[in-house]
Parts: sequence; structure tokens; C-alpha cells
Amino acid sequence: VSAPKPVQTARSELPIGIFDSGIGGLTVVRQIHKALPHEDLVYLGDTARVPYGTKSPATVIRFACEDTAFLLRQGVKAVVVACNTASAWALAALQREFALPIFGVIEPGARAALAQSRNRRIGVIATPATVRSRAYPECIRTRDPRVRVFAQACPLLVPLVEEGWVRHSVTQAVLREYLAPLLRQRVDTLVLGCTHYPLLKSPIREVAGPHVQLVDSAASCATYVRDALQKLDLLAGDRPRRGTIRPYVTDEIDRFQTMANRFLGFPAERPRQVELPPRSV
Amino acid sequence: VSAPKPVQTARSELPIGIFDSGIGGLTVVRQIHKALPHEDLVYLGDTARVPYGTKSPATVIRFACEDTAFLLRQGVKAVVVACNTASAWALAALQREFALPIFGVIEPGARAALAQSRNRRIGVIATPATVRSRAYPECIRTRDPRVRVFAQACPLLVPLVEEGWVRHSVTQAVLREYLAPLLRQRVDTLVLGCTHYPLLKSPIREVAGPHVQLVDSAASCATYVRDALQKLDLLAGDRPRRGTIRPYVTDEIDRFQTMANRFLGFPAERPRQVELPPRSV
Repeated sequence: VSAPKPVQTARSELPIGIFDSGIGGLTVVRQIHKALPHEDLVYLGDTARVPYGTKSPATVIRFACEDTAFLLRQGVKAVVVACNTASAWALAALQREFALPIFGVIEPGARAALAQSRNRRIGVIATPATVRSRAYPECIRTRDPRVRVFAQACPLLVPLVEEGWVRHSVTQAVLREYLAPLLRQRVDTLVLGCTHYPLLKSPIREVAGPHVQLVDSAASCATYVRDALQKLDLLAGDRPRRGTIRPYVTDEIDRFQTMANRFLGFPAERPRQVELPPRSV
Repeated sequence: VSAPKPVQTARSELPIGIFDSGIGGLTVVRQIHKALPHEDLVYLGDTARVPYGTKSPATVIRFACEDTAFLLRQGVKAVVVACNTASAWALAALQREFALPIFGVIEPGARAALAQSRNRRIGVIATPATVRSRAYPECIRTRDPRVRVFAQACPLLVPLVEEGWVRHSVTQAVLREYLAPLLRQRVDTLVLGCTHYPLLKSPIREVAGPHVQLVDSAASCATYVRDALQKLDLLAGDRPRRGTIRPYVTDEIDRFQTMANRFLGFPAERPRQVELPPRSV
């Protein structure tokens, strides 16, 4: 028996809320803005507590609830959990706790991988917490038990992206080491199970070779959210103006601005810094 | 004019409090336990919000105040800020805010480097936040303005240590890249300005070569704390029993236990998980 849900009127004119442990979720914002150019987006990056990917389930759930509560206070009509780790551990808890549509990145990525794989051998690279959750294997194998899923935790990839070493021999060497066990298993599809990894697409492609297809969970998520909001009759429709992107962060804004453009692909609006009050779940 | 200080009776029989952003501070615990084997130690690792080294001054100060307030509630006689980033940004604020002796790792490391360098060219490797603070250069050059200090931010080293890639060609390559500008400046002394770096001593020694002396700020800090407590008449004295080490963490305890032994050098007591209430400074 779950607790009574707070009532929240969802209306198609309201913005979509998107949160992530930090700035990586802007790769999801980028794809949603591309798929739904007329929607207003509110983004929260929990940059004071980033990363989530090395932390425990209970802590990730607590942080994700605080993030979602903040977005609700901004009056959003739906929430997208852009962070793979938070999607893996907290999505079910959030959906129980909050009375509005909440979408994660795991199911869209899993579906896209299933649609692409021919030999039914799928690789997943992600943070240690996401791998530990087994969210991707479970989501994939629920839909097709004949598929084999091989997951690899890659804790060094986020720091390498944030250091800007995307085209660097060290990154190549790290990728060779992380991908070797997956390639030995002859996966034909590789899910990029972390918001930072789309920035490593070309070195990953080089190391994985031409026979492995990459699944960008950010792109899959955007299509998924568009279809889901359409079914729920929650799309803003073809407004004459382009949608806005309003960013919030929990740490200082300078660092955000420097990195945001790389993830977003175009200049971000100046974010506001906020504090998230603790909240009992 | 500073605010009135809360009164806190410090007594020699009480434990010493030590905090860090995560588990790296156990390298400082290890050295203090070695230098002061009869002292009881209380350790707090803020593992839910680790790392501090990539975050902003204001956020680091806020976290450090919450950490110190927690240790005070455990009835400690003094506080050691084992985290270089927190020492760099928050030490002065903590000393203003709390009425008990508070020591950081920067000054001990700076003094040790000054004592060792012959050519007055000192290198410092640290987190981006510590480098940005300019705490080491300022502390060193206040004592001897003839010295030149060259600082290098090394954001990949902490993740490499946590991944366990201490003896790994990738770590060698990363170190070569980070240390090259310092070696070009012909530093004869290199400060390991982050609690994680003592674990990389041997690969650093290999890359830096035999003419560069390493300063372990954890070891320097232990000597410094011993001398300071002695002057303050706050040493526990030669009790018949060995001191205890009581660890607390803010994230789950499993991960702590796995990593703790590596940093501490011997098995750690099972930690307790705590929540740190927010606190206005």
C-alpha cells in the first residue's frame, strides 16, 4: 500500500522537467529539444553532489526524490530522469511517490538495442551503480529472454570526458580495456548507458569497429518521451515560438557554463543556482 | 568582527576528529594513528557527496562546516581537515566558526616542501579546486618569496586510484602528461596535494625520476598535528591501550569497507552511516 499521492494538475502548456546528477543530462536535453522543438524545458543538474554513478541505491533514490520535488515546484507537466544511474535505481520509487508522468532513459535504450541487434548479443557500458542495478539486462531480457546482455562498468569515462580528453591516446587505451570483454563476447550492439558517453561516440566507434552498432540512450529517450506525451495528450503542439531551456544547478554556475555548450551543442542560458531542501520519502 | 563563538571545552582525553570528502582521508588517519598511537580518532567520510575537488568554493565551505559540526557533536577535542580541497577553501572559515583547534593539510605540506627543496622550485599536484585556490603557492611564498611554485590539476588521478589502476600503463601515461610541465620547470620537490595520491607514490616516482623528492601531505600533517596538540597540552598521553578509530560515512558502508583497508593499511572498524543536517554558516 503506497502513501497518498499529492495531486498535481498536468497540462500540455507546462514545461517538461529534466534532471541529472550534473551536466551530462544536457545530452538528453539536446535530443528532446531536437525532437520536440516547441516544448519548454526546465533542467536541473545536481552539480553539488555529482556523480551519482559511484554511490549507493539508497542515496541515489534520496537525491532523485529531492530533484523531482524541485522540478514539481517549477510547475512541470512531466519529468525525464536523464541520469542512467537515477533511472536504474530510482524510477520506480519516483513513479510511486509523484503523481505525474515520469520517464527514464533505461527502457528507451533497451528497446532501441533490441530493435537493432541481429545476433541477440548486446553490450552495455555504464557507471558502476547502473551496472550493479542490472536494470539494462533485466529490461532487455523481460522483452526477449533469448538475448544475452554483457555489462561493463566504466568509471573512468566520465572523468575523461570532463577533462576534455575525448581525442586522446589515454582514452583510446581505457576504451580498449573496457570494451575488450564485450568484444570477446561478439556483441553486435552497444548501449551507451551514461549521459556522458555520447561525447565519446567516435573513439568508441574506432575501438569497437564497424560491426558494432551504438545505441545512444539520450536519442532513444527523446523519441520515447515524444511518443509517450503524445499518447497522454500532453504535447504543447505547434506553438509559433521555439521552446525555451531554463537551467538550474546546485553548485556554482561558472563551471556549468563552460561545460554546458559541449553537451548541449549550442550556448545554454545562464543557469540559476538553487539549494535542494532535504525531504523524507 | 567575527560572530561570537560557541563555547566548547576541549580536553586531552577526548578523541581527535578527522574528516574528508570520502575515503581518501584514511591516508591521513593512518599517519596520525602511527604518529599518535594512543589517541582515539573519529573519522567522517562524506561519501554521499564525494568528490569536493571538482566543486565550487562556496559549496566546499558549506559541506566542510556540516562535517565539522558533526564531529563536534561526537565530542572531539580538535579537528583535522584531511581533505586538501576543504583545507584550501574552508580552513579559515572553520577556524572562525568553531571554537576548537582545527588543522588542515596544506600548511604542513607546504612547510615540508620548503624544508626539502634545494633549488627552490616546487611542484604541486592536486584537484582542480585546490589548484584554483592557490593555497599551496600562497602558503609557500609567504614563508619564502624566492621560491617558485608550479601547480598542476590532476582530475583523473582520484578516479584511477578508485578504479584500482595503480600499476597500469594508463596511469603511467596520465602521469607522464600531468607531470611533464612540472618536470620541464625542473622542480626538485613535488607535493602530493590530495589524499589519494600517496597510493600512487611508486608510479609517480618512476615518472618523476630520482631527482624529485615527494612530499606526502598526509605524513607531514600527522607530525604537525602531534606538535600542535603537544603545545596546546591536548595530547592524551601514554595511555596503556592503543587508540581506537571510529569511522562514519554519509553513503552506504559496503563500499567504504572494500576501499578502506587499502587507504588505511589495515582493516577498518565497521563504519556507521549518518545524515548531515544542513546548517547555516
